[in-house]
Amino acid sequence: MANAAQQLVRMLDELGRVTDEPGRLTRTFLSSAMERANLVVGGWMRDAGLTVREDDTGNLVGRLEPQAPGLKPRTLLLGSHLDTVRNAGRFDGALGVLLPIVALGELKRRGVTLSFAVEVVGFSEEEAVRFTGAYIGSKAYTGRLKAADLKLTDARGQTLRAVIEAHAGRPYVPPKPAHRAADMLGYVEVHIEQGPVLEDRELAVGVVSAIASQTRGRLTFRGKAGHAGTTPMNLRRDALAGAAEFVLFAEKFAGTRAPLVATVGTINVPSGAANVIPGQTVLTLDVRHPDDAKCRRAVAQLTAEAQRLGRRRGLEVTWQPTMQHQATPCSPKLTGLLEQSVKSVQGKSLSLVSGAGHDGVVMATQTPIAMLFVRCRDGLSHHPDEYASPKDLAVALRVTVDFLRRLAG
Amino acid sequence: MANAAQQLVRMLDELGRVTDEPGRLTRTFLSSAMERANLVVGGWMRDAGLTVREDDTGNLVGRLEPQAPGLKPRTLLLGSHLDTVRNAGRFDGALGVLLPIVALGELKRRGVTLSFAVEVVGFSEEEAVRFTGAYIGSKAYTGRLKAADLKLTDARGQTLRAVIEAHAGRPYVPPKPAHRAADMLGYVEVHIEQGPVLEDRELAVGVVSAIASQTRGRLTFRGKAGHAGTTPMNLRRDALAGAAEFVLFAEKFAGTRAPLVATVGTINVPSGAANVIPGQTVLTLDVRHPDDAKCRRAVAQLTAEAQRLGRRRGLEVTWQPTMQHQATPCSPKLTGLLEQSVKSVQGKSLSLVSGAGHDGVVMATQTPIAMLFVRCRDGLSHHPDEYASPKDLAVALRVTVDFLRRLAG
Repeated sequence: MANAAQQLVRMLDELGRVTDEPGRLTRTFLSSAMERANLVVGGWMRDAGLTVREDDTGNLVGRLEPQAPGLKPRTLLLGSHLDTVRNAGRFDGALGVLLPIVALGELKRRGVTLSFAVEVVGFSEEEAVRFTGAYIGSKAYTGRLKAADLKLTDARGQTLRAVIEAHAGRPYVPPKPAHRAADMLGYVEVHIEQGPVLEDRELAVGVVSAIASQTRGRLTFRGKAGHAGTTPMNLRRDALAGAAEFVLFAEKFAGTRAPLVATVGTINVPSGAANVIPGQTVLTLDVRHPDDAKCRRAVAQLTAEAQRLGRRRGLEVTWQPTMQHQATPCSPKLTGLLEQSVKSVQGKSLSLVSGAGHDGVVMATQTPIAMLFVRCRDGLSHHPDEYASPKDLAVALRVTVDFLRRLAG
Repeated sequence: MANAAQQLVRMLDELGRVTDEPGRLTRTFLSSAMERANLVVGGWMRDAGLTVREDDTGNLVGRLEPQAPGLKPRTLLLGSHLDTVRNAGRFDGALGVLLPIVALGELKRRGVTLSFAVEVVGFSEEEAVRFTGAYIGSKAYTGRLKAADLKLTDARGQTLRAVIEAHAGRPYVPPKPAHRAADMLGYVEVHIEQGPVLEDRELAVGVVSAIASQTRGRLTFRGKAGHAGTTPMNLRRDALAGAAEFVLFAEKFAGTRAPLVATVGTINVPSGAANVIPGQTVLTLDVRHPDDAKCRRAVAQLTAEAQRLGRRRGLEVTWQPTMQHQATPCSPKLTGLLEQSVKSVQGKSLSLVSGAGHDGVVMATQTPIAMLFVRCRDGLSHHPDEYASPKDLAVALRVTVDFLRRLAG
């Protein structure tokens, strides 16, 4: 298997050089680099014995039929996305496409046959860089791309429909799902963690229990602007001091309720000046939890505390939600199997919540999903220094091979 | 005296209509409205028996010689500025010029003579609206305007020198001080408080002990940016959480050390986003205290605490001072006399620190100063709703008349 892991590292390096921008890695939806990436990855798929096709939206699909013929086989989907953010690392997305190809090649080399069909999917768009709506690839694959989505425009003003039709060379009608739900075994995605938990626990891989529920919104604290020199401390209604109290409360509140996370990512004093007591402060709050109800309850408790401390300080506080995503639970059955593989390869497993969204969010609308996270250095992602060690990649590869064998049972 | 107070209110109203901008009060250095203001105020000075002149920089000076001739008399200066901020109130500055004129008129009406000369000065520039350097008027009057100041440019690119020379109609040479130090008794300025203390204490007027020492600077907290969804609370180094802790510390620290005030007026997460843990946070800190040493010590303690909490949180903290003004203590002798007048008129006196700068800062370089603060509604200033009640103006007027008589002793 050491050879297979080395092969995976070489493939990640080579694909990491397929870019739209010289000197840094950027591959966006249906760009020239994405077409080249599909050619390169499609070649590797064929080498592993897969039959390759590409759909109108640029999703790359390599299919392996089971060797035992007979009834129409059910299909296990393995995949991730091949597009990237601007100035990306070479693991985010690519790993979840290339690792299954190498795993299937390894099974072929060992003469192992599977009782089900496998499709390795390289989704064409997950990062929402060219068009603001994410998951174009997996939405098209699952028949969930809507006419409204096709009106999205890129920075040059081209619609998503026009870009797809120029690529496909024919009028585009959003397709039906690639598979009926009953024909699928599930969807499994291997992805770098993009966070620091595995590194902190000194584990190469972990199993995702759910993609978190997420609420985002804006909290505004309104007090009374005043002269910084002439207003004594006890006569102030300082909006920023109230906001600061909230920032610390949110940190402490989430700190004792893992896996809850609460983040104040931006803060601002509109028309503020060094010599003026803040009359208003606006901050963003981002709250995530694998359980929808617990996420909602946490948001309610946090915003209630903002109101309470506002009243105590004579501040008016308003909460304006701007985004709400339901949680996506992973399949207990697939996840349990994956955990067995992780335990058998790594000694112990670790259950992780994915705070970030993935193509699995879309796939889960049609089929059970499971996700394997791979440790990445320093939790870093969306950055050229993004890194997962060959040793950890080898562990993930062994886990995936073990998982496929277990599933084939 | 009720008539005199009514007269003062009428004068403030009338002067408040002399503006460069229709519909709102704005008078900037050597503008057309400033020339008209000097004509109007100069007329009132003459009515009160003063001899009026205007210097090249537009300072308006009304002089009253003592009736007892003989040795060259010493001169008491009373004044403030006649320029305003944009969209100003009608009390800031104007009150300190008009009230002495009315007070001298009242003494004349009563037949009271003074043993010293009085000059009422309407300084032409204190608010630094047209040119960024403040105190052009009082600097010129005290011979402190430097060649470098004359190179300042306004928004149209005109130099201060060009603007003065166009007004004066001749080449401008910065003048010597209007008076030798030995010839002055002191400088007394009546000004609205621009803060809420007198209102809170239910007093019409108070006496300023000092114009505060002031330090301003920038605190930067550097932690580690990270994904808001994938980084558990216990693995974060959140720069904003550290900054928030500092904001609350500064509030609490100054809150127990009156008259110290500490203000964080602006805060910012550079390249922040709702879904990214703040890697950096920058805030401004403004610290004021009437005592230079105590102001310096407070800044040292505050920045040391920022360092301490930074270390505890794994944040790098840097402090960059951007401004430092020494305190300007008021004259104990003049201030003591003014306090006697306040006690005799109002029953009790209150000692206040001026957190804002005034022409007194410049005047104090040559002569003892004293300042009388008048309550203003809601602490509001630099705003069209700026308001001091006729009743409070009457108190300030009686105090000033009493003070002049005491000084004449």
